[in-house]
Amino acid sequence: MFVTFEGVDGSGKTTQVELLAAELRAAGRDVVVTREPGGTPLGEAVRELLLGGATISPWAEAALFAAARAELVETVIAPALERGAWVVCDRYLDSSLAYQGLARGLGAEEVLELNLRVTGGLLPDRTFVLLVDAGESERRVGPDGDRIEREGGSFRERVAAAYSALAERFPDRIVALDGRRPVDDVARAVRENLGAHV
Amino acid sequence: MFVTFEGVDGSGKTTQVELLAAELRAAGRDVVVTREPGGTPLGEAVRELLLGGATISPWAEAALFAAARAELVETVIAPALERGAWVVCDRYLDSSLAYQGLARGLGAEEVLELNLRVTGGLLPDRTFVLLVDAGESERRVGPDGDRIEREGGSFRERVAAAYSALAERFPDRIVALDGRRPVDDVARAVRENLGAHV
Repeated sequence: MFVTFEGVDGSGKTTQVELLAAELRAAGRDVVVTREPGGTPLGEAVRELLLGGATISPWAEAALFAAARAELVETVIAPALERGAWVVCDRYLDSSLAYQGLARGLGAEEVLELNLRVTGGLLPDRTFVLLVDAGESERRVGPDGDRIEREGGSFRERVAAAYSALAERFPDRIVALDGRRPVDDVARAVRENLGAHV
Repeated sequence: MFVTFEGVDGSGKTTQVELLAAELRAAGRDVVVTREPGGTPLGEAVRELLLGGATISPWAEAALFAAARAELVETVIAPALERGAWVVCDRYLDSSLAYQGLARGLGAEEVLELNLRVTGGLLPDRTFVLLVDAGESERRVGPDGDRIEREGGSFRERVAAAYSALAERFPDRIVALDGRRPVDDVARAVRENLGAHV
């Protein structure tokens, strides 16, 4: 199973990734946990570029995320899935659909096509989107942040709205959860949704 | 006019870019000369990544080149063309079609689609491919070289063959020239082909 967690910064993705991985390991599963855009030496280098200070045009940004993703799929995710492991990933291509496709206006379909092209068409089996509004995100992340977080209120609102839109557009794959609920409640909802697969 | 030069390393592209730019300037034209994958701060950073020592999977490599290209189009090439300047570029998307699309086997159509997606569909008005065989390329470049050059004989041969194939596939845009001819002969052929445009 390939499971991804998505949402704005401060939505609780990283915590839920860790809780799910711990539960799977306790159930005796082989689990690979990874994150985007890092997770590989190339990905970490791209992460530095992306989250640094430089201005980057929207399609260049989308292509850099896609490059890091292609490398992660080729070297980490696909080999793990092939040997039957679970892969739990903190962000995957829905981040590009939300940030570059919808919030920056490149188009969700166009960005999806780019990403399917470079990943050999690999979509997650299940994606959990943790919905929190822009104000809650900002309260949790605080005034600091990387280049994308620093873009501030209106961009953050567009990303939050984009995640809701993606959950409606891909109802078979994406499960939207209320990220304002207590951590354990969200973890239980994830566990129940995965049900017999665990 | 947007003019690009293509070919294996050591084919004489850089020299021909400089000669054409000098001739255009002498004719009073506004000329912008640039190169791939550099030409922008992001592009130079991507160049370091690409030409360094790390192993990079084929689609990640294609996406990194596409990212550098998208940034170059957005910040340098498109603004220059909009103000009516000539743009002369040392490598552009045909390099990706030759190296990643054909020589690495990702598929020329697939790599073209990726590149048209991120560049807003910008194709050169004219592309000069300087054909030299793999042996001549190796003699001119010498034993040193970057990550791609170091891949050696058979890869170099595939790239040389790929450029010939691209010239046949896109006869309206690509002009193939014999890169073994004297520099001035090649420059004259370029100048004659551009004819009344200069």
